Amino acid sequence: MSHPTKTVKDIGEQGLLQRLQNFCPPGMVGDDAAVLEIESGYSMVVTTDMLVDGVHFSDRTTSPEDVGWRAAAANLSDLAAMGASPIGITLALGLPGEVAISWVEALYHGLYDCLQRYQTPIVGGDICCSSVITVSITAFGRVLPQRVIRRFNAKAGDAIVATGFHGCSRAGLELLLHPESGQNLAETAKNTLIQAHQRPQPRLDILDHLWAIVGDRSVAGMDSSDGLADAVVQICRCSGVGARIERQAIPISPALQQFVSPEQALEWILYGGEDFELVLCLSPQSAQDLVNHLGSAAAIIGMITSEPTVELIDRSGNYAPRQLTLSEGFQHF
Amino acid sequence: MSHPTKTVKDIGEQGLLQRLQNFCPPGMVGDDAAVLEIESGYSMVVTTDMLVDGVHFSDRTTSPEDVGWRAAAANLSDLAAMGASPIGITLALGLPGEVAISWVEALYHGLYDCLQRYQTPIVGGDICCSSVITVSITAFGRVLPQRVIRRFNAKAGDAIVATGFHGCSRAGLELLLHPESGQNLAETAKNTLIQAHQRPQPRLDILDHLWAIVGDRSVAGMDSSDGLADAVVQICRCSGVGARIERQAIPISPALQQFVSPEQALEWILYGGEDFELVLCLSPQSAQDLVNHLGSAAAIIGMITSEPTVELIDRSGNYAPRQLTLSEGFQHF
Repeated sequence: MSHPTKTVKDIGEQGLLQRLQNFCPPGMVGDDAAVLEIESGYSMVVTTDMLVDGVHFSDRTTSPEDVGWRAAAANLSDLAAMGASPIGITLALGLPGEVAISWVEALYHGLYDCLQRYQTPIVGGDICCSSVITVSITAFGRVLPQRVIRRFNAKAGDAIVATGFHGCSRAGLELLLHPESGQNLAETAKNTLIQAHQRPQPRLDILDHLWAIVGDRSVAGMDSSDGLADAVVQICRCSGVGARIERQAIPISPALQQFVSPEQALEWILYGGEDFELVLCLSPQSAQDLVNHLGSAAAIIGMITSEPTVELIDRSGNYAPRQLTLSEGFQHF
Repeated sequence: MSHPTKTVKDIGEQGLLQRLQNFCPPGMVGDDAAVLEIESGYSMVVTTDMLVDGVHFSDRTTSPEDVGWRAAAANLSDLAAMGASPIGITLALGLPGEVAISWVEALYHGLYDCLQRYQTPIVGGDICCSSVITVSITAFGRVLPQRVIRRFNAKAGDAIVATGFHGCSRAGLELLLHPESGQNLAETAKNTLIQAHQRPQPRLDILDHLWAIVGDRSVAGMDSSDGLADAVVQICRCSGVGARIERQAIPISPALQQFVSPEQALEWILYGGEDFELVLCLSPQSAQDLVNHLGSAAAIIGMITSEPTVELIDRSGNYAPRQLTLSEGFQHF
């Protein structure tokens, strides 16, 4: 009485497309391309990402729903990092014929759940045969030209805001890879960290409040997809400035604090990556207003300086100052 | 004294990105996403495609330059099929570490050459490690809302225009797969057919003249990427109409005529695919004006009818009428 799993090969390209069209708004599918309206006065922002099975995700730590959610979140986070609101995404999918249809539908479900939260439609796609599962997403957003957030806008004297906790996604990955490492951790803390890894939240929610605070003054920033240190260093390099980060000013998630030593927590905060928070450089007053709005997971973690080095200093005197560099965490090839 | 071929692995992700940035306009690279200006009043058109080594191209018939050119051409053709002018493309690339850098640069050269011809920049990209070479392109264009070319706009009484020869790309592929098949063919004819396969031309050149002829009247159409018959049948299905195509009205390239029998030529014309011409449904007068402008490779090949079948008729009386269906040529999985 066993039901063999239906695969992509069983229903073919047309069968699969029909099922997946349920995730797309009507009218977007069935022509050579999708047509989108852009309100006048806006610039368009575009970002693209390719994820490959075994490189960016694996069945061991990531369900297909989570692969979909994370892929959507990473792209929406890139839009947020530019100050842009999402308009839509396209999705190209390379699939071996043996992949279960239920896997593909679960991927779409995760993707769709994340997109729905930010009112973002899937406006186009392509499905083809490949020897390895490949997910390629292109996301489009819109932004008023004067509000584009750039990496090269930081000025000495700017306060550096981290919009939320860092290191939690990396900690969640650790718990998934080595469940035994979390045996002394409370269930809620465990869930918080795993959730941070599986269901990251792009910080599109911040933008409206940010504009309300800064008006039309320019904002420098990017997202922290490769870790907090990497974001600060990238912004400084692009802007020809430096930064002084205060160790004690970086908020640490209580769950992370319970899980690992302060030294390990700091490394994951700086270089763990995939927390998808924003790192923004603003006037000290605007920065304080933004942090007040965002709550205690957000903080002013330091200041932009004119000397072109990025230093992590420690006010307790327990640690010598340390120079921060770009993430070497994930180099392809 | 042999120089080992340098691979992607040898120079790493950063090294490769640096080399490939030469193909992108300055200012587009180095932020979380690219920013594009959209003139007010235009709609945006988006299309995406994924190509996989061994599925969509192979070293046997396609140099990396040609892979790049064809990928760009296919996406620009989808824009043309919507009536849109290109704004830019993004390119995501999955690469095994062993791929030669020269291969990747050649791919970019081919892509760039095609894009240059249509003033289209590469505005963003992603490179990642994969077990199989994967090229994912998303193309954006702009079109005035009243000028969007749709598949579902065809009306009984419209004349059907094919904007150029069909079957040549398929014939070129045959010559590449089986060079001996062309031994009696003149060199220029051979080159014409191979060129049609390796360097297809998206018909963006037609649009300005088309608008001059039709004004703001709606146009139905699509590109013939899956063959001439497939395009006509798709348009008819989407529009709830039928068509009568005249066999004698379909122009046959002299090179194709020299290469194969009339029967084989017809099959390749109908279902060969990848000629990337446009199939447009217009009032008979507009159709004639357009054909006069385009020259003898273009023709009115038949009429849209109210009965929902697509028939190929033969005025010579040598062949019985034949009902045309969707291409079954290339089904993934």
